[in-house]
Amino acid sequence: MSAKAGPLVDLAIDNEGIATLTMQRPPVNSLNLELLQAIGSALDDVGKNKCKGMILTSSSPTVFSAGLDIMEMYKPDLKRADAFWSTLQEVWIKLFGSKFPTAAAINGHAPAGGCMLSMSCEYRVMVNGKFIIGINETALGIVAPRWFMDTMCNTISKREGELILTLGKLFPVEEALNVGIIDETATDKTDAVEKCRKFIKKFDRIPPLARTVTKQKFREAPLAWLHQNRRQDTDEFLALLKNPKVQESLEMYFQMLKQKAA
Amino acid sequence: MSAKAGPLVDLAIDNEGIATLTMQRPPVNSLNLELLQAIGSALDDVGKNKCKGMILTSSSPTVFSAGLDIMEMYKPDLKRADAFWSTLQEVWIKLFGSKFPTAAAINGHAPAGGCMLSMSCEYRVMVNGKFIIGINETALGIVAPRWFMDTMCNTISKREGELILTLGKLFPVEEALNVGIIDETATDKTDAVEKCRKFIKKFDRIPPLARTVTKQKFREAPLAWLHQNRRQDTDEFLALLKNPKVQESLEMYFQMLKQKAA
Amino acid sequence: MSAKAGPLVDLAIDNEGIATLTMQRPPVNSLNLELLQAIGSALDDVGKNKCKGMILTSSSPTVFSAGLDIMEMYKPDLKRADAFWSTLQEVWIKLFGSKFPTAAAINGHAPAGGCMLSMSCEYRVMVNGKFIIGINETALGIVAPRWFMDTMCNTISKREGELILTLGKLFPVEEALNVGIIDETATDKTDAVEKCRKFIKKFDRIPPLARTVTKQKFREAPLAWLHQNRRQDTDEFLALLKNPKVQESLEMYFQMLKQKAA
Repeated sequence: MSAKAGPLVDLAIDNEGIATLTMQRPPVNSLNLELLQAIGSALDDVGKNKCKGMILTSSSPTVFSAGLDIMEMYKPDLKRADAFWSTLQEVWIKLFGSKFPTAAAINGHAPAGGCMLSMSCEYRVMVNGKFIIGINETALGIVAPRWFMDTMCNTISKREGELILTLGKLFPVEEALNVGIIDETATDKTDAVEKCRKFIKKFDRIPPLARTVTKQKFREAPLAWLHQNRRQDTDEFLALLKNPKVQESLEMYFQMLKQKAA
Repeated sequence: MSAKAGPLVDLAIDNEGIATLTMQRPPVNSLNLELLQAIGSALDDVGKNKCKGMILTSSSPTVFSAGLDIMEMYKPDLKRADAFWSTLQEVWIKLFGSKFPTAAAINGHAPAGGCMLSMSCEYRVMVNGKFIIGINETALGIVAPRWFMDTMCNTISKREGELILTLGKLFPVEEALNVGIIDETATDKTDAVEKCRKFIKKFDRIPPLARTVTKQKFREAPLAWLHQNRRQDTDEFLALLKNPKVQESLEMYFQMLKQKAA
Repeated sequence: MSAKAGPLVDLAIDNEGIATLTMQRPPVNSLNLELLQAIGSALDDVGKNKCKGMILTSSSPTVFSAGLDIMEMYKPDLKRADAFWSTLQEVWIKLFGSKFPTAAAINGHAPAGGCMLSMSCEYRVMVNGKFIIGINETALGIVAPRWFMDTMCNTISKREGELILTLGKLFPVEEALNVGIIDETATDKTDAVEKCRKFIKKFDRIPPLARTVTKQKFREAPLAWLHQNRRQDTDEFLALLKNPKVQESLEMYFQMLKQKAA
């Protein structure tokens, strides 16, 4: 069984009821408004289909997701930027607070927003290779919102979280494993997906209601914070985009990307 | 000096002023209303006797405590269930927030409520053997309350806490030591009690007032939460008991216990 | 460039814009009202000079800081004690919440308030030697305030924090490294300062605005707590000083110091 949720993601549900949500926005799954909308809609479908669990992965052989699309932030249309951030918040609420078990098969680079998506899942398996994962927002001159921080600190210590977020640190796979950013490594994507599946199947013996309530109680505080501060959180993001120094940093980053592409 | 606090527990105070509270409800110290009342009353006595500290242990050679008595939850009398939960809350408040130092000599299995009792102490020594400790509530289809979660996260990381509580994980002794659920292992009960005593005596050189205020400041937030939400917390427990799916899970568990006993 | 901030501290700013704040109140940098005022004023100067970062260290070859001056607490003038505590709060707010990166070159003993000052920085390098670091307030019969606890738990786990603060634990250098109280060791003060400098220079590639907002978001909760509870926090300290048992503990400690000096 496979239900196309749109061209930007693929949602496949196997005969055990485990869904695989594959991001497929070439070349690097940059999270723009449309990709985020497609992810959000696919997460709804996973819920509606009463799937046993969901694996998040990428169709690219080298990039899980490059994070927020710089084109949504550099010289932005503020109305679209508002919708962009609001959709990002919604995706996080749906993923971090999902009723079903979630795991990320990280088959490539996962900086910034890519890292955040995987950290919002309950388990992370990363493919061995010259890939990096981390939260490097500060290096681009932008600030990760409180709920990115809370997402990190749901998994790693406050100490590591502060260092990673202020330094804009990116980790190679082995180091990410040692710090606890990821739970396991895999030889390739097939192996990563299989290990995610194994994690999700651990819940076969757990009554789903008890599991869901327990997970949501655990994750209640960061979710409640965002529910209560969505407007303020978006306004902070928009204020950042309007800051000339932030646009300068993005400009430099944008020129660098253009040079690389040339 | 020994003061019987009732048939379900024994409270012995040695000549150094260290109390030993022994749970003795055969066969497995299932926490029912009466055992919880006896523990609560014994904790009051430890305070009234201005004991230097308290060691919590069990009279059974293989079980510290099997956790909440399923008979208080399966086809429950709701009025009694209300008193049961309220007494459990009181025991936790008295133990987790006690003025005196506390240590658990875990001389056998400590699943669910048994684990919670030991985690509410300030130090844990577990006897080596084929024993398990952990929070497996979800496996029975029930949900550990917020203050169980807070108790776990007072000692282990949020990451480990979420995995343990959603998966209903039970640990063998060595693994429990590695994860930090327990602080030390012991060869037998005598050794475990002696190591608990050694921990409590470390406070001999610390002025008690400063120690108590420091401990209570540290544990203030989870205690304040329960004080402010006792009724709601009990109502959530009662709602869970009224849920047919939860009763189904308990029925299955109950049948399994009956088969084992036969 | 070097700007004397007063006789009790020295503030030197190098040609890269990195400030070194040296505490120099012989013999052991006991934190009295005047030293705290000088530190607070120097922290303001670091900000005004738009320094790239600040290294906190000591002019003594064996003591970073011995912590709060017992003479501010033993048989206190309550009006001065009030100003003392209020100034300590201000120093912490300025240091823990500083816009610029901070690192401590811990070139000697750092008990109690000395430990707290270093933990308020973002990075700690301690000189190898027979030095100790930790929070031993309870051993003197006094209670570390909530924001000392929060400062500890910003860096180490709640579990370690509770044990250290209730036991009044002091760690040798190697153990402090293992527990995570310090980040690195150094062969001598020059090496320690150099390693602090290296940490601060890691931020050269990070736009300062994004870095500062990220740090302050991370440290927001403990800072907000103190801002909202400054009066109550001071009153708790004054109540402690008025407690005869606390004065007894301080008296004993004071006599011990006098004997040592004799």
